[in-house]
Amino acid sequence: MQLQRPVLPRIQGLVPSPPPLPGFISRVEGGKRDEDLILPINDSLSATLDTEHLCAKTTVRASPEFKENKIWLNGREESMDNPRLQNCLKEIKKRSQLSKDMESWKIHICSENNFPTAAGLASSAAGYACLAAALAKLYRVEGDISGIARAGSGSACRSVYGGFVRWYKGSDPTGIDSIAKPIAPASHWPDMRILVLVVNDSKKKVSSAIGMKRTLLTSEFLTYKAEKIIPQRIEQIQEAILKRDFETFAEHTMRDSNEMHAACLAAYPPCIYMNDTSHLIVELMHQYNSTSDRTKVAYSFDAGPNATLFLLEKDVAELLGILDHYLPPAVDNNLEYRKGISIEVTSPSQSLLQKINFPEQQPGKLKYIIHTQVGSGPKQLPDSEALKFH
Amino acid sequence: MQLQRPVLPRIQGLVPSPPPLPGFISRVEGGKRDEDLILPINDSLSATLDTEHLCAKTTVRASPEFKENKIWLNGREESMDNPRLQNCLKEIKKRSQLSKDMESWKIHICSENNFPTAAGLASSAAGYACLAAALAKLYRVEGDISGIARAGSGSACRSVYGGFVRWYKGSDPTGIDSIAKPIAPASHWPDMRILVLVVNDSKKKVSSAIGMKRTLLTSEFLTYKAEKIIPQRIEQIQEAILKRDFETFAEHTMRDSNEMHAACLAAYPPCIYMNDTSHLIVELMHQYNSTSDRTKVAYSFDAGPNATLFLLEKDVAELLGILDHYLPPAVDNNLEYRKGISIEVTSPSQSLLQKINFPEQQPGKLKYIIHTQVGSGPKQLPDSEALKFH
Repeated sequence: MQLQRPVLPRIQGLVPSPPPLPGFISRVEGGKRDEDLILPINDSLSATLDTEHLCAKTTVRASPEFKENKIWLNGREESMDNPRLQNCLKEIKKRSQLSKDMESWKIHICSENNFPTAAGLASSAAGYACLAAALAKLYRVEGDISGIARAGSGSACRSVYGGFVRWYKGSDPTGIDSIAKPIAPASHWPDMRILVLVVNDSKKKVSSAIGMKRTLLTSEFLTYKAEKIIPQRIEQIQEAILKRDFETFAEHTMRDSNEMHAACLAAYPPCIYMNDTSHLIVELMHQYNSTSDRTKVAYSFDAGPNATLFLLEKDVAELLGILDHYLPPAVDNNLEYRKGISIEVTSPSQSLLQKINFPEQQPGKLKYIIHTQVGSGPKQLPDSEALKFH
Repeated sequence: MQLQRPVLPRIQGLVPSPPPLPGFISRVEGGKRDEDLILPINDSLSATLDTEHLCAKTTVRASPEFKENKIWLNGREESMDNPRLQNCLKEIKKRSQLSKDMESWKIHICSENNFPTAAGLASSAAGYACLAAALAKLYRVEGDISGIARAGSGSACRSVYGGFVRWYKGSDPTGIDSIAKPIAPASHWPDMRILVLVVNDSKKKVSSAIGMKRTLLTSEFLTYKAEKIIPQRIEQIQEAILKRDFETFAEHTMRDSNEMHAACLAAYPPCIYMNDTSHLIVELMHQYNSTSDRTKVAYSFDAGPNATLFLLEKDVAELLGILDHYLPPAVDNNLEYRKGISIEVTSPSQSLLQKINFPEQQPGKLKYIIHTQVGSGPKQLPDSEALKFH
C-alpha cells in the first residue's frame, strides 16, 4: 500500500448524529470536564444515520513530496492551524504503526459533506468521525478510533460506529476510558425512521462549542441535569432501544431535548438554538401524538433550529401528510423539498385534522425534509471515488 | 356610607407586576403548593408600576335591589362562576365587618384595564389586586388584604402595595402567613425606570395558570430552582434594592427571568412564552450592556413575549435610541408607538453602534413601548370617576 495513494473512507452523515437522548450535553465540546481532552460531564447516546442520505466524505493523502499539510473543506482551502484538527493528528500519530520516516510525510485532506455546515446538523461530528476513520486507515491504526475522533469534536467519537452508540464519559483523568461503544447495530431496529426537518433560518449565531462552554460555566441547570437526571435516564433509554420500546424511547428523547435547551437558556447570557419554527414543530408533534393512544413520533433538537424526528416506518406517510398540511413548503419553493428515502405521502383525513389543535397553515417555515434511517457507520470507498484535490 | 354607592379604588397596573426576581415562579397561580389556597413554592419580589400609565380600574356596588351578582370586564359581561372570583368573594366575606343583612346583598362589579389582557402583562394580577382593594372598602375589611387578592390570582397579593413588594410563601398549611409585605416604597429608588416592550404577537397560547401547573408537575428544573437557587437569590436582590445597587439587581433579574423560562421549557410538554423577538431583545440588551463598563439595563419576561426592561432615568434616552435603531416600529405604523412618560430620544453615536454586534435593523418587531416607573399602589378615586355599568 502506497501511502500517497488516496484512502477514502466515506463516512456517515450523522445528522444530527442525533443525540436522541442524554446526548446533547456531552456531545458538544464545551460541555466537557477537560478542555484539551474533550471529556464530557455525562454519558450520551446517539443513532448514526445512513450515509446514503447524509454524509461527510473525506480523502487523505500522504506523500514525501508534499511541502506542507493542507486541508480543503467543501472545496475551499482552510487553515491547518485549527487546534481541534491538530489534536486529531496528534492522537493519530501516537497510535500510528508506520515507520518514523513515513510518519513525517506531509498530508493533504479533502472533505465534503452533502448537507449544510454549522447549521446544527452535526457537521463537525460527521466530519471528524470521517477524518478519524480515514487517517486511521492511512496510518494503519488498529483498535478503537473513537478517542481520535473525540480529539477533533466530542460527539464525533460516537459517529465512528454505526447503529446506536453510547459514549461513556469515563473517569480516568487522561480520558483513556472516555470512549464510544455500539449498543445495537442498525439492523436491530429496522423499522426506525428519521425525518430531519430543515428550518428556514440563517446560520446559527452561537457555535455549539462556545455555547456549551458558556452553559457549562454559568448554567446551574446543566450540572443538575448531568448529575441528577441523566445517569438514570441513559439506562432507561438504552433499555428502551434494546427492547425496541418506541414509546419509552420517544418520551425520554423529547424530555431530554427540552431539558438540554432549557439548560442552555439558563446560561448567562442565555444560549438559544431553537426558534419559533422549532417550537411550532414541538407543539405539532405533541398535538399529533395526542390524537392516538400511542406515541407515534419523538423530536430532538441539536445546536440549531432544525428538528430530528424519530418514528416507525408505518407512521411516516401519515406524519409527512400532517407536516405538508400544517407546515407546507413555500408557495414559490423551487428546490427539492423532500430528500432521502422516497415515499408516497398520505393526506390526513378530516377526522384526524379535527383532533389537532394547531394554528392555520404556515407555508415556508420548512426549507426541506430529509427522510432517512439508522446507518451502519463509516465505509471505505474504492479509489475510483476519491475526491479531487484542488 | 351607602353600600349601593359606588366605591372606586383605581388600582395600579403592574405590568407585568414585574417579578424582577424570584418572582415569576410563585406569582403565577399554578406554581403553588396548594391548589385552592394559591400558595407558592417560593418567595417572590415585584415592583408595582405607576397607575398613571398602566392600571386596572374597578367599581363595585352592592344593593338590596340587585337580583344576582354580575361582573363586566372591559365592557363585556362575564360569568360570575369563575372559581377564582368566588374564592375572592369568600375571603372578603370571612373578614367583612358589615351586618349579615348587608352582606347578603348582591353585588355588581365593573372592571377595565388600559392594557391588553392575557398577553403576559399581568392583567389578572392588576385586576384582582384592584378588585380586592375595592371589595375591602365596600365590606369594610381592615388590615392586610393581600390574602384576599391572592385568592383571586397569586401574584395579585403583591400588587395591593406600591413600591417593591415581597410575597413570603409562608409555611402554615392554611396559608395564613403566605402574604405580601412592602420592602421599600416607590420613593426609595426614584430614578428607577421601566420600559415595557410590547411585542407584535397574537394572544398567548398557554395561560400562565395552566402553564405553571404543568411546569410544577413535570419540570425537574422548577423544583430545583425553588429549593436551591431562589432562597439565596431573593435575599441578594432585596439587599440590592435596599442599597440601590443597580448592577446586582440587574444581573439577578436577568438570570431569574432566563431560569424561569428555562424551567417552563423543561416541562412536558414544554411551555413556551418567549418568542424570537423576545430573544432578539435579550441579545440586544446583553450587547448594549457590553458597550459600557457598567450594566445599564436588565430584562425580565413574564408569561408572554413582551419584555420589561429596568434601567436608570439617565440611561432611558440612550436606550430608546438603540431600540429605535435596531428594532424600529413598522414602516406603516399608525398607532401611538411610545406611551407613558415622554422623553426626548438620543440617537446613538456611530462609535456606540460600532460596539454592538447585532443583526441589521428589523422593523415591526415591536408594537409599542410603554415608559413608566415604580408606583405607589392602589388608590381610591372620587365617585365622579366611577365606571358606567352597562
